[in-house]
Amino acid sequence: MANDSKVVPVPVLRRMPAYLSFVKTLQKQGEKYVSSTRIAEYMEIDATQVTKDLSHTGISGKTRVGYEVDNFVEILDDFLGFNKINNAFLVGAGSLGCALLQDKGLRNFGLNIQKAFDVDKSKIGTKINDVEIFHVDQFRGMPGECNVAIGIITVPAECAQNVADLMVAWGIKAIWNFTPARIKVPAHIAVQNTTIYTNLAILFNKLHGQE
Amino acid sequence: MANDSKVVPVPVLRRMPAYLSFVKTLQKQGEKYVSSTRIAEYMEIDATQVTKDLSHTGISGKTRVGYEVDNFVEILDDFLGFNKINNAFLVGAGSLGCALLQDKGLRNFGLNIQKAFDVDKSKIGTKINDVEIFHVDQFRGMPGECNVAIGIITVPAECAQNVADLMVAWGIKAIWNFTPARIKVPAHIAVQNTTIYTNLAILFNKLHGQE
Repeated sequence: MANDSKVVPVPVLRRMPAYLSFVKTLQKQGEKYVSSTRIAEYMEIDATQVTKDLSHTGISGKTRVGYEVDNFVEILDDFLGFNKINNAFLVGAGSLGCALLQDKGLRNFGLNIQKAFDVDKSKIGTKINDVEIFHVDQFRGMPGECNVAIGIITVPAECAQNVADLMVAWGIKAIWNFTPARIKVPAHIAVQNTTIYTNLAILFNKLHGQE
Repeated sequence: MANDSKVVPVPVLRRMPAYLSFVKTLQKQGEKYVSSTRIAEYMEIDATQVTKDLSHTGISGKTRVGYEVDNFVEILDDFLGFNKINNAFLVGAGSLGCALLQDKGLRNFGLNIQKAFDVDKSKIGTKINDVEIFHVDQFRGMPGECNVAIGIITVPAECAQNVADLMVAWGIKAIWNFTPARIKVPAHIAVQNTTIYTNLAILFNKLHGQE
């Protein structure tokens, strides 16, 4: 039975791409069905957790055979939003910003970066992976009709709040913040903080903590 | 008082780069001291949490004035491992792998990618940001003395386990896994999973869940 709540707990969402990845691998191997037990073994978690997580998505299994692989992949891809194109603006075409613009994988997962912005005059007018870089002053003047809901922040941390304010004033509905700064935005704006360097600190701590 | 345990809980490590970023901004503004209350307000958490977190690092504050900014930045940078160079090999020079190779920021945070590996013959021998790409078959033959502790996996998910096995056999001590696959490695190997597309799924869910 599908859960009525639309906002799914983050720990559940963190597991789902791993479920999807595992079942896609089985699909490539020509398998037709997968049980919650098998997914649970792969994930090294309890099978009841798997069925509980999947109840959010509307995927339903059959007694004894489990989940149908093709159906599982289609529903979960859809549920995670990877099948729908979401347009985004990126502000900060420095090293990390350019790296994101280079990553064609993002489009496969539903994110289309339409335009990039920076303050460096030497970059304005150039393109990375077909995305043009504009001056950040032009952000304010961009027409509001262009159906862009997501703003990506890849500026230095001390500029993050200014960029967030600019995005909110423009009409962005969700912000993907790649800086370590904590931004303050109105409650109706969705924020996702992703600091890959934080993951690096966690890895270093695991590595050096055991030496 | 510094905590004796070397492995710091992950939620604590997740907050620390934000502390560091905030205090570095104050440092640039010429401020000399910062209180735990001020850090707590910025983070929107309790001040006792801040002092508890910082007790892991050995940073000590003074009554009434708080933490000394320069000292705070130096100790925390050091504690998070960002001041020390850690060498790494990257396997999978596709879109995401190349994006990581392009990101000069990683070096500032202590990660030096020495060599990259791929199976695509057209890429072998080329360089990205001064890092040469070798055939993955050469990975096994690399001399063990070259002081590389970290392996970065940016291959398609279905190849992740094979690459992890190769890295473990070679002598890698920590794996930074960017694929959504869950890899199985011996207990003494540190693993950090970072799936940026998972963050995208969380952002989409927040965005579309509130529509």
